Amino acid sequence: MPQDVRFDLPFTTPVSTHLEYAREQHLRWVRDMGLVRSQAGFEEYQSWDLPQAAIRTYPHASPDDMVVLMNWFSLAFLFDDQFDAASPDRADRITEVARELIVTPLRPAGTLPRVVCPITLAWAEVWEQLSDGMSLTWCTRFAASWGRFLAAHAEEVDLAARGTLLGVRPYTAFRRRTVGIHHSIDAGERSRRFEVPAQAQAHPVMEGLRDAAADTIGFMNDIHSFEREKRRGDGHNLIAVLHRERGLSWEKAAAEAFRMTSERLDAYVRLEARVPAMCDELRLTDDERRRVWMGVEAIRHWIGGNYEWALTTGRYAAAKEGPAAAAELEGRGSLDDLLTV
Amino acid sequence: MPQDVRFDLPFTTPVSTHLEYAREQHLRWVRDMGLVRSQAGFEEYQSWDLPQAAIRTYPHASPDDMVVLMNWFSLAFLFDDQFDAASPDRADRITEVARELIVTPLRPAGTLPRVVCPITLAWAEVWEQLSDGMSLTWCTRFAASWGRFLAAHAEEVDLAARGTLLGVRPYTAFRRRTVGIHHSIDAGERSRRFEVPAQAQAHPVMEGLRDAAADTIGFMNDIHSFEREKRRGDGHNLIAVLHRERGLSWEKAAAEAFRMTSERLDAYVRLEARVPAMCDELRLTDDERRRVWMGVEAIRHWIGGNYEWALTTGRYAAAKEGPAAAAELEGRGSLDDLLTV
Repeated sequence: MPQDVRFDLPFTTPVSTHLEYAREQHLRWVRDMGLVRSQAGFEEYQSWDLPQAAIRTYPHASPDDMVVLMNWFSLAFLFDDQFDAASPDRADRITEVARELIVTPLRPAGTLPRVVCPITLAWAEVWEQLSDGMSLTWCTRFAASWGRFLAAHAEEVDLAARGTLLGVRPYTAFRRRTVGIHHSIDAGERSRRFEVPAQAQAHPVMEGLRDAAADTIGFMNDIHSFEREKRRGDGHNLIAVLHRERGLSWEKAAAEAFRMTSERLDAYVRLEARVPAMCDELRLTDDERRRVWMGVEAIRHWIGGNYEWALTTGRYAAAKEGPAAAAELEGRGSLDDLLTV
Repeated sequence: MPQDVRFDLPFTTPVSTHLEYAREQHLRWVRDMGLVRSQAGFEEYQSWDLPQAAIRTYPHASPDDMVVLMNWFSLAFLFDDQFDAASPDRADRITEVARELIVTPLRPAGTLPRVVCPITLAWAEVWEQLSDGMSLTWCTRFAASWGRFLAAHAEEVDLAARGTLLGVRPYTAFRRRTVGIHHSIDAGERSRRFEVPAQAQAHPVMEGLRDAAADTIGFMNDIHSFEREKRRGDGHNLIAVLHRERGLSWEKAAAEAFRMTSERLDAYVRLEARVPAMCDELRLTDDERRRVWMGVEAIRHWIGGNYEWALTTGRYAAAKEGPAAAAELEGRGSLDDLLTV
């Protein structure tokens, strides 16, 4: 049921026409890179339909850049699932790999990873393409956004390994860091080969927009992926946290999660209305204003595109059978181990 | 001899008057944190006289901020020496600790380290104070500068562990990353509690100034620390690289290193002259121009302050006896192991 929950977005976002071309190249790459290792793993991966997410979140990317973005999605989502509840030591390996992923954008592009596995090899290749042509300032921002996300992800794995569950307030702060939206929005600039002016990016309105979008998308994801995470025994989901801490029924917890999501979406919309005044305050030129607006569009593409994808992806499917569902019931996050050579 | 080499700096830089107050607090902290463990280690550490470096590179810091900056110097310099040529496995532990240091500024300030040792505990405490009151944009820039330096440092340790030596051209590119100047300049903003406007920081002139300063200081350090590094068997020193690759005598290699340093200092000075035109191009207000100039001063403080300190520090002393010199001759980078609990 939660995967069907609809939100009333006050804007529509475009969809790229490069789906077939990019998906074909992407699926070949995923196999060539060893990012799926079993037939069942490949089928599970395909059911997520990440190419549908990429064409919606980066609608203006060129055909070849669309492949790069799909490739990036695959390694990020597949890495996200590498936790295994039955092997607490796994948390250390996940941290080791996460730190390699953090360091990659801090080294000259094209450097081979020091910690070698399919995930790190894939990321080193993708980063070389993702950083192509971007300024040092953008690379710096992306590296920090990406690093904060991966550091938070490792914390999440540590919490799970220790069986620690957060309350509502720390959870919402934590969710903003684990959702991984800041670097996803940063990549929107690369996807259209432009950059938001640095002074606008540093302005509280723009920072607020990014945070509001992160909260909105994080909470939406929690609602849409609720069945999957319940099946996987993942207590870090807004509905589960509300149910547990406030003693709400599942239905009331879901309703409260919906209300909280709408509130953050409203905050986003109110902040968006302040962008013209921000541009005036910063005395931006017409060209700079145009790039600020493209930056706002990059955020919208993520809110709208991710929402559309979440409604249908097999990743969040409630009723599920087969090897992937069986692995999940055993506490294994994924069918294939991607953290070893 | 090389520690005496004088350069003709075209500017003078101020010196803080908070030496005694800050040094006393700092030396107590270094012992309390376990950053020195033996009496010989403490004596060696004191001979480096890092407080003299701090009062010159951050002349405008408040007395208590001066303590924070000295504390930061201590953990960075002490970590730098943890390599042990006799224990190649040590490179893995250094990388593990370096990655913890990289991640610290990517987590909420005050988070306890995941990899625990005196160095990481000290850095978690210092980062909480160093980031206090600074914007997200500054924290992002610092985190990336610091992360790039530590990633390069780990590469240097790997090269040493494998016995790989670089040629002149790759070495000079590498030196810009290992010298650790970008984050040191970033900290200059915190030391005076101001920030360079983001659009100026992103401008090629400002990027060029930072790179020219990094090259200048890196090469100067190589000259002034030449005797120490020769004693330690560290082949990653500009004089040693020139001697080895170009077949120059030590004297001629030192002269060529001097010439290369002067050339980068000249480039810095030429770029500085372009700052007013950059401010015009960016249509900066008077207050923004003032903050740009303070940013330039932060770079000057590092060029001048580091130079003055290098001429006299016991860290680079040519003639040296006692436990620290004995350890160096055995290939041990330091007297105390600071990477274990």
